[in-house]
Order: sequence, then C-alpha cells, then structure tokens
Amino acid sequence: MINIAVLGYGTVGSGVVEVINTNKAIVNKNAGQKINIKYVLDLREFPGDPVMDILVHDYDVILNDPEVEVIAEVMGGIEPAYTFVKSALEKGKSVCTSNKELVAAHGPELLRIAKEHNRNFMFEASVGGGIPIIRPLNQSVTADDVKSITGILNGTTNYILTKMSKQGLDFDTVLKEAQALGYAERNPSADVDGFDACRKIAILSSLAYGKNVNYEDIYTEGITKISDIDFKYANKLGRSIKLFGKAEKKDGNFYVFVAPVMIDENNALYSVNGVFNAILVDGNVVGNIMFYGSGAGKLPTASAVVSDIIAAIRNLNTNVAVEWTEEKLEIADFSTSKKRFFVRVSGNIDEKLAKINKVFRNVLVIKLEELDDEFAFMTDVISEQKYEEAASQIDGIITRIRVE
Amino acid sequence: MINIAVLGYGTVGSGVVEVINTNKAIVNKNAGQKINIKYVLDLREFPGDPVMDILVHDYDVILNDPEVEVIAEVMGGIEPAYTFVKSALEKGKSVCTSNKELVAAHGPELLRIAKEHNRNFMFEASVGGGIPIIRPLNQSVTADDVKSITGILNGTTNYILTKMSKQGLDFDTVLKEAQALGYAERNPSADVDGFDACRKIAILSSLAYGKNVNYEDIYTEGITKISDIDFKYANKLGRSIKLFGKAEKKDGNFYVFVAPVMIDENNALYSVNGVFNAILVDGNVVGNIMFYGSGAGKLPTASAVVSDIIAAIRNLNTNVAVEWTEEKLEIADFSTSKKRFFVRVSGNIDEKLAKINKVFRNVLVIKLEELDDEFAFMTDVISEQKYEEAASQIDGIITRIRVE
Repeated sequence: MINIAVLGYGTVGSGVVEVINTNKAIVNKNAGQKINIKYVLDLREFPGDPVMDILVHDYDVILNDPEVEVIAEVMGGIEPAYTFVKSALEKGKSVCTSNKELVAAHGPELLRIAKEHNRNFMFEASVGGGIPIIRPLNQSVTADDVKSITGILNGTTNYILTKMSKQGLDFDTVLKEAQALGYAERNPSADVDGFDACRKIAILSSLAYGKNVNYEDIYTEGITKISDIDFKYANKLGRSIKLFGKAEKKDGNFYVFVAPVMIDENNALYSVNGVFNAILVDGNVVGNIMFYGSGAGKLPTASAVVSDIIAAIRNLNTNVAVEWTEEKLEIADFSTSKKRFFVRVSGNIDEKLAKINKVFRNVLVIKLEELDDEFAFMTDVISEQKYEEAASQIDGIITRIRVE
Repeated sequence: MINIAVLGYGTVGSGVVEVINTNKAIVNKNAGQKINIKYVLDLREFPGDPVMDILVHDYDVILNDPEVEVIAEVMGGIEPAYTFVKSALEKGKSVCTSNKELVAAHGPELLRIAKEHNRNFMFEASVGGGIPIIRPLNQSVTADDVKSITGILNGTTNYILTKMSKQGLDFDTVLKEAQALGYAERNPSADVDGFDACRKIAILSSLAYGKNVNYEDIYTEGITKISDIDFKYANKLGRSIKLFGKAEKKDGNFYVFVAPVMIDENNALYSVNGVFNAILVDGNVVGNIMFYGSGAGKLPTASAVVSDIIAAIRNLNTNVAVEWTEEKLEIADFSTSKKRFFVRVSGNIDEKLAKINKVFRNVLVIKLEELDDEFAFMTDVISEQKYEEAASQIDGIITRIRVE
C-alpha cells in the first residue's frame, strides 16, 4: 500500500478522488500496489462528503507525514502551490500536478529539485487535459529533431471558433453561449486573449527543445478580433481559423507564438473541432504525428493526473529523465517570423488594388459578392516586419490573419 | 558508450542506422550516453556501404558478445527472429522490434523472459509505424477502463479506400496504382485481406486488457469486396468506409474484429486519409483520445525503433512494467456482436421492400437515382447471427457493410 495526498478538492481534485475510487482495481493493478488517499487538503469543509474523513486544512500535516510518498497538486495558481510543491519535493515526495501556471513559471527548477532527491515532478495534465502528450514527448519523441510543435491547446477558444465557423455567428454571441454552458469563464480573458495557450506552448516547446522557454517572451494574440465575416472569407477559401500555439525551428532560430491562423484541410488540425484539443508534432524522421482528445474537463484531466500518480509510484525511487533545463532558450525576434497574411480592407477594390500590389506584390484577391464595401487579399510569405511596413501604407485595413 | 546491434539491413534496418547517424546529437543526449552500432546482421553483402565495416553474417557473434546490451530486431517474420530474440533476452540483452508477426505470436512469452532477466522487450514500431501508441498504452492510459480501442492500422488499405472515396475509382484500379507507387505489395493479401491489421489489433487489445488475445481468434474481413458503388451510397449518406481493427468491452464481454466499417464525420477516424494510421482509445474517464501519424515507411518506423532503443538504454537494468500476461483473454463469439448493417440488394425496390421490412424491421431505405437495378437499406442494431438469419431470407443481396 502507498499513501498519497491530494491538494485541492475543486473540480480536478474531486475528479482525482473519483477516478481512483471508480477504477480502483485497474488503478491499483497498474500502480503495482494499493493506492490509499490519506489526505485531501482544502480550506473549505464538505459536509456529508466522504472526503471529510481525510480532509485537512493544514498543509504541514501532509508535508511532515513521512508515510505520504506522492502528492497530487490540483489547486491551480502560483501560490501557495509553488511553496507546497517545492517543499514536498525537498522532503523527498514525488509531485504530480495539473497546474500549467506553476509548470510554465517554475517547471525546470522543480524538475531539478525532484532529480536531486531522486523523485519525480510530473505534469501530464498541465497541457491538453486528458491527452497523453507530456510523457510521449519525454519518452517517445526521442529519436527526432522536432521541426515544429503546433497545438490547439484551449478548448474554450476552439469551441467558440468552431461555432462561428459552422453557424456563421459572431464572437460576442458565441462567447455568451459558451459562458452559459460553462465552457467559458465569466472573465474569459485567460482563454480568449491566448494567455492559457501561451503557458501551454511554453511548456511543450521547453520539452521539445530541452531548454526553458519563458512564456513572457512569447508573442501572444487572442481571438477577440476574429469576426463572422473573417469566417465567410475562410469558408470561401476552403479554410478554417484556429487558435494555434506553435513553436518552430527554422534555420537554427526558434520561433514561438500564439495567434489565430487560417489553415486548410491538408493540415491535420483542420478537423479538430469543438472543445477538443490536439497537438501536432513534426519530427525530421517521424514526420507528422498528432495527439487528440479532451483538452479539459473534470474526469479527462483527473485521468491524466492519476496516470502521473501511477507513473510516480512505478518509479518511486528513480528519477524519470526529462530534458528541460533552467538554461534559457533564445527565441528569435517575432518581427523576423515569416508567414502569408490574409488581409481585409474596407473600400473599393479598384481604387486600392494598384497600391496594394505595389507595396505587397503578388497578392491573391478575394471578393465576396455579398460585401460591397470591402475586399480581402492574401500576401506571399513575408516577415512580420515587412507586413507591418507595407500595411502602414494601405488605408482601411480591417484585420489581418496569418495563413499556413 | 553503449553497444547495440541491428538484426536485418532491409528497409527498417537501414532506417535505424540512418536515424542514429542523422540525429546523433539528439539521440545520444536522450539516451544519456553515446550509442555505438557495433554490429549489423544480414546474410547479404552491401559493397560500398559504410555498414560493411560492421556487417556480420553469424548471429552468434552478436549473441556471445557481452558488450552488446541492446538489440534491434528488424528482420520481420517469425523465424529466425523468434529464436534470435529469445536467446538474446535469455543472455540478458534488451530487445526492440518492429516485428508485428513476432509480437502477436510470442509477445507475452518474450515479455516474461525479459522481466525474468530484468531487461526489456519493446515493440513501439510493431503497430502504427512512427505513431507513439505502445508506450502511451503502457504508461499513460493507466487510469482508465478501456471501453474500446479502434484503429486504422494499415496504410495500404487506407490509401486504397481513400482513393476510391475521393475519386470514384474501383478497387482493382486503385490497387494497381498503389502497387505501382510501392504502397502495396505485389502479393497484396496481407494488407487487403486484413491479416496485417489483425495482428496489430491483437497486440493493442492484449495491452489494453492485460491478457493475451490470440490473433487467430479474431474475426477478420478485408476490403476486397468493397466497390466504387458502395462509396456512392456512403457519400450520399455523408459517410466514409474505413478498415477498422477494433476491440470492445461490452457487458463484460470482449469483442475483437477486423472489417470495413461505414462511419460518419462524428467519428474522429473519419478524416484519417491516405497512408496515415490512427488509433482511437475510448476510456471510461478520459473519453476519446486519438494518436495519428505515418503508419509505415522507412524513417517513421525507424524513429519508433530508435525511441525504443533509447528507452531500453534509459532503463538498462530495470524492467519497465507492461501488462500483458500469457493468460488467454476469452473473446466473445463474433456472431453475438451487434451493429447496424448497410445492405445493398439487386432488383426492384417495390417488389422486395415488404419482405425486407418483415425480416429486418425498421430499415432505412437508400436509393441512388443513377442506379435502376439496385437499392440499399440500413438495419437497426442487430447481432451478426440475427443479420445472417434475416439476410438468408432475402434474394439478391450484393454486399453488406457494418455501420458505426
């Protein structure tokens, strides 16, 4: 028998307790021994819930109990999670977490402390919910030079974009619906402004390239400016618009960004719809591989946390290798990143096209019959800086979306 | 430095050597030490190829060299692979293989021998080519009761079906084209009759359920009877036809089969086209997760073998847990398996419909305007046995395809 503790009895924490109870036989068999949840930490009381018997309010009870060998941290946020996790690892306990903020901010330090104590810091649930991606990156994508890693990493925004695409609705309408359904927070900024995806691509790119990508260095653009009219053009082009978190290695430079991107059906991420997430890894020998599933939700996320608990138990006195050092990965200036751009312009096409062709060269013009007062064009592959310089010479640009 | 040997210098074997050389820095870093290919075993000579310096024709040289700690078996076929692998494990060497015939026929025995010697028998490349699926099943999908595992496991047949679907071509034409392109063997039976997919679903279902699924017990139906007309109906129904290898747990019974299945776009496997493979796992807590990528090819398959070599080196003196015992998994009689059926019938609909409705009940009729002399219908969910009994009462059934 092995004793564990769960920090936080919110959505994910109660899910972890539920998964361990529901799938008791399978979980214990895979762990190789019986898992006993000795403590659940939460400041609140839960009258009538069986968890009351093991609920504690004081973290030191858990920290100072040498019988507790594995801790699941599912509180979220930086503090007190960081202090709790660090002290647990220093006491020689392994920690499994679903906390992307914590991992993005302190991952390599916590990995180092775990290694120093021959224990493990695991975080499968911090990216892609229930999708196995962290362990496969660490243990399966090991023979490849990763050319790029691209993710649809946020279910809320993918739900909103999918609804807009399929039903022709505008952003505000779909956001309100998503909030009513519980798919979006009352303050949706972390999702719709791309901050959540930013932390996740920081984690994935750090693992793919072995050095630390600081999430604050990542160019991050959300989906709040995407409109139903953008989707009309996208549909006409046989394309869709997805919020990508992407890291690419090009000519020895590393580019990392979060932004909406217009893609066509040849991209494996094209048919990832609704609240689903997916991560596409392009390796120099394996080619494209994709991992797909529920990117959030109580039970899928808890499933990933429990798979980490099982892995921590299987490797109780062995540090499982993770290539993610504290050394900083130098990210190239985003202004040098090159893409095609889709650009919408208000006004009359005949009056503006000559100037557009002069500053952008070789544009592809797209006109929707139902829209008299605007048109759009697609550029060649140019740098962000080149785009900005050229765009500053054109009046009436409504929006621009990167194209892959 | 660690010494390894590669058994077989065919497509995959030369790929393994190429991947280790091309990605030397990454591979050695991930292995934690320099990998030295000390021997390559092949009966042939390769004049001018650098491999000549390390080529041996006698396996005993490798077996009896205590410096060789990991062996990659990429010859294919049962013998001499089985004898070679077994003796290597018994000598305390870890073995990584891409050989699905070997794994399907002798997997649990070889796993047991590896465990007895505290070494590892790994076979990531035996299913899904470069797609990480074996290691994720062993190490990530550990908190779930697997309700089903469904795979598009054969790139040749998926290429053929995709071409038939998108271009309206018949089976023979596409098969010839696939053979000309090297996507299909001159003797295509192993692929088009489903035998390859059968071994792969045997491996996956054994891992998912922890006991041994004998591939000879699996109901296996290929794609040779699928016609361009079937796809006309499928297109009208907004569906596609894919060759599935599938294992399901229903009411405590296990069903495993290989057969073409008509699916709609709500199935995550619907948009897996061309030579790509994908495996969809439905867990009782994680929900649907999918793994997608190149299911064959020299470098993708070699990438998976090298990831196993790295894992074997990281765990040189530790047996990594794999739940797959020699105990037989009892598979339910396929005649009790329940599905909907799509059925094509020659002749006049008005003359036959009354009888069809009488024996099948509640059928959905599908008529294509361009086909005067036939029609089709879709049944309710019924057992295979019930279908056969009812179908025997209807004259002129051209074909039937299961529907999910």
